[in-house]
Amino acid sequence: MTLLLNCDLGESFGSWTMGMDAQVMPHIDQANIACGFHAGDPLIMSNTLELAKQHQVRIGAHPAYPDLVGFGRRSMNCSTDEIKAFITYQTAALGGMAQSMDLSLEYVKPHGALYNDMMAKDNIRHAIMDAIASFHLPIRLMLQATPNADRHREEAKERGIELFFEAFADRCYDDDGRLLARTKAGAVHSRDKMLEQVKQLSEDGTVTTVSGKLLPLQADTLCVHGDNIEGVKAIAAIRELITS
Amino acid sequence: MTLLLNCDLGESFGSWTMGMDAQVMPHIDQANIACGFHAGDPLIMSNTLELAKQHQVRIGAHPAYPDLVGFGRRSMNCSTDEIKAFITYQTAALGGMAQSMDLSLEYVKPHGALYNDMMAKDNIRHAIMDAIASFHLPIRLMLQATPNADRHREEAKERGIELFFEAFADRCYDDDGRLLARTKAGAVHSRDKMLEQVKQLSEDGTVTTVSGKLLPLQADTLCVHGDNIEGVKAIAAIRELITS
Amino acid sequence: MTLLLNCDLGESFGSWTMGMDAQVMPHIDQANIACGFHAGDPLIMSNTLELAKQHQVRIGAHPAYPDLVGFGRRSMNCSTDEIKAFITYQTAALGGMAQSMDLSLEYVKPHGALYNDMMAKDNIRHAIMDAIASFHLPIRLMLQATPNADRHREEAKERGIELFFEAFADRCYDDDGRLLARTKAGAVHSRDKMLEQVKQLSEDGTVTTVSGKLLPLQADTLCVHGDNIEGVKAIAAIRELITS
Amino acid sequence: MTLLLNCDLGESFGSWTMGMDAQVMPHIDQANIACGFHAGDPLIMSNTLELAKQHQVRIGAHPAYPDLVGFGRRSMNCSTDEIKAFITYQTAALGGMAQSMDLSLEYVKPHGALYNDMMAKDNIRHAIMDAIASFHLPIRLMLQATPNADRHREEAKERGIELFFEAFADRCYDDDGRLLARTKAGAVHSRDKMLEQVKQLSEDGTVTTVSGKLLPLQADTLCVHGDNIEGVKAIAAIRELITS
Repeated sequence: MTLLLNCDLGESFGSWTMGMDAQVMPHIDQANIACGFHAGDPLIMSNTLELAKQHQVRIGAHPAYPDLVGFGRRSMNCSTDEIKAFITYQTAALGGMAQSMDLSLEYVKPHGALYNDMMAKDNIRHAIMDAIASFHLPIRLMLQATPNADRHREEAKERGIELFFEAFADRCYDDDGRLLARTKAGAVHSRDKMLEQVKQLSEDGTVTTVSGKLLPLQADTLCVHGDNIEGVKAIAAIRELITS
Repeated sequence: MTLLLNCDLGESFGSWTMGMDAQVMPHIDQANIACGFHAGDPLIMSNTLELAKQHQVRIGAHPAYPDLVGFGRRSMNCSTDEIKAFITYQTAALGGMAQSMDLSLEYVKPHGALYNDMMAKDNIRHAIMDAIASFHLPIRLMLQATPNADRHREEAKERGIELFFEAFADRCYDDDGRLLARTKAGAVHSRDKMLEQVKQLSEDGTVTTVSGKLLPLQADTLCVHGDNIEGVKAIAAIRELITS
Repeated sequence: MTLLLNCDLGESFGSWTMGMDAQVMPHIDQANIACGFHAGDPLIMSNTLELAKQHQVRIGAHPAYPDLVGFGRRSMNCSTDEIKAFITYQTAALGGMAQSMDLSLEYVKPHGALYNDMMAKDNIRHAIMDAIASFHLPIRLMLQATPNADRHREEAKERGIELFFEAFADRCYDDDGRLLARTKAGAVHSRDKMLEQVKQLSEDGTVTTVSGKLLPLQADTLCVHGDNIEGVKAIAAIRELITS
Repeated sequence: MTLLLNCDLGESFGSWTMGMDAQVMPHIDQANIACGFHAGDPLIMSNTLELAKQHQVRIGAHPAYPDLVGFGRRSMNCSTDEIKAFITYQTAALGGMAQSMDLSLEYVKPHGALYNDMMAKDNIRHAIMDAIASFHLPIRLMLQATPNADRHREEAKERGIELFFEAFADRCYDDDGRLLARTKAGAVHSRDKMLEQVKQLSEDGTVTTVSGKLLPLQADTLCVHGDNIEGVKAIAAIRELITS
């Protein structure tokens, strides 16, 4: 099975630009589109959907905690009712905009601190899954491929939803299958190491951890970043590697 | 044909409460629900939809200019592309939340300054109609019943959308079929005059203007207000008058 | 020494009203005024300052995490640089508005989750103290009177700032001098118990804890709440008790 | 008298960057710093003030309508009480932050649509002047040098405030002394024409209008733009021209 490439897009806001969306879009399979809570406004969402349509890229909602100035990167202590409500709101907003353009939403990938909280806390992940399960369209949840994948699959099955598991191209994994903290040496791979990791994930379904251990890691999609020109080049290189 | 009653609801925000939604809902037919731009947050929207469901009240999106502190009451000079984008965003957000609760959205009624701008400026009204026409579900636009109704019907027909025309229960009309400005004497009716106007609208399809002229005014629905206990009582009185 | 009465005021926002400011102001000594991040907008701040001026009430800034929809009640993981910056911003905004009306700012009392974080985490409390120490006017910090008061006094002394210690009129204290969690039985006093606690604090400088233990608690000011008519009556009763 | 150079700075927000502040600051005399309503957040304001301090650049508040997503570029129909309140709020916030860093605020230059409204509407300009006149520190208002300058001087004198008049380096003037609308041909000068205009303004106190007419234009300061590398180079060239 071929790995898909997913990337966060549509993270501009009003007069502020972020990311090289037009350069990234031709190389990826799945666009995680900001929904207005951490980035993105209706006009930018509309333009990003248009761009995805041109390049026939699949569309995911990228909902976040309501925190523009913090870019959704700080955890906020929200009730599970609140989380369900704002997941549904953001997903519906993007999904409806997509449908108005004859596109359809395929999945939800929570952003930033909400993503981290989803991976760390059962009640938050269950609230997100519940929101997706009650959504009026069949959509998937994208979350991180970890050694807990079986448990996550079971949770999803109970609710009748499907998952996408994602791995990271440029991040080093620790022996527990978690991402090595960015503060640690070797946390972010060099370009060569990144391409090696992608190859290994794609061909063998494993990663080599920080200590040199071989760890199985089944992923459907690979998270890539297009913040700057280096990022765009790396995506293009991964694209070539995977499709060849 | 019986007049429906529509009312703005869900206009609380976070910890702030506005309106007597629980008291109003049993008496009305159509709830115009705020979508987060001038009032309403995802949790409040969800609770308001729940309340509408309990009372089998029809649901409309009540989108606005992005202006919380101004409550959407100030005109903002937005491009028609922006207006289309934020109408679609807000309508999709509420509509998708409704569908997740097995409800369906019936119409869109713009709020405050956006409503006034829609009635006053062709390009804004057309942008709103275009947004509704391209929406993925068949929804109606609610706008004011005025002597321009024929033109508005034609504009809607060109786009393949349906309209709801609304009249106002408690506001005096001028001889041109517009609402008498609130600054003018007699702009807001006493309770008795309001009930008379409702009766006349309902039975004869006319209003008596400020100068005493009889003016035909075909309306599908009547706008009522539930901000306080007096408003709630007035709605109950109108309800009784109309259904009897 | 007489206990002062402090109360959170100016917590309306735009078209939404909260609190009975006009009823509360005549009875209190110190108004903690919201600065726009969790509540309050410039016009409401200006009106609240005007009201404080009429009643010769002392003025404090009531800064918060940037979270309108959450009313500043959720902890946000901010850097100490951010905290210093937004404490200074909010304090300066209110302080400058006050000076434009020939009033002067006396103190800062952080709001909600920021208050709780200040009491619980040294680095946050130090960031807040640093912001106050570098402020261009001599202002005090208001914080909770706890068994750690000596340490807090020392921290303040190192930075050359003064403190106000506050106690709570209506909340039961545990044996460690902390507020009994609201989820626990007896956490919020009846009116009679509240007045007893105020009397005891005022005359003996002690509280009787949940287990019946006598705990010394030196306070400069008493936190009271004016959210509704019951609250206003309680404030009036406390006022009478203290000044008699 | 030498013309000063003023430039809008601190217009980043949260994770979004705008402008080349570090490159621009060494070349200018006056920094118009965003105050959080159209751009700028407390941390960015603090960092921008720090940068101004390093380069001994004078500081002005750059207040705006409350409209982040529209970058303060759309006129909003606010009452004069609201305008006074949010001018004072923003000016006080920046001014107090500056004082905490031993800097002092010198002036206020309204931003975007608020600037345009100030030039076009007497009641808005008077509200802004009133806010500045009642500010607790003596600060100036910066506004556009036009043929109405005498009237503006008189309005300021009545209120006991001082003015800075600014001219534009790169914009063509019409025969009435107004900026030629950007939609018109020749509205924005080429680099050579810009430098010519600066020289003429600086040496003769005149501009050559779109029709070739010579128009007297007394300016204290010149508005320049540092959005991109071309802008920075133009500023450096103007700087050299003026100081030589």
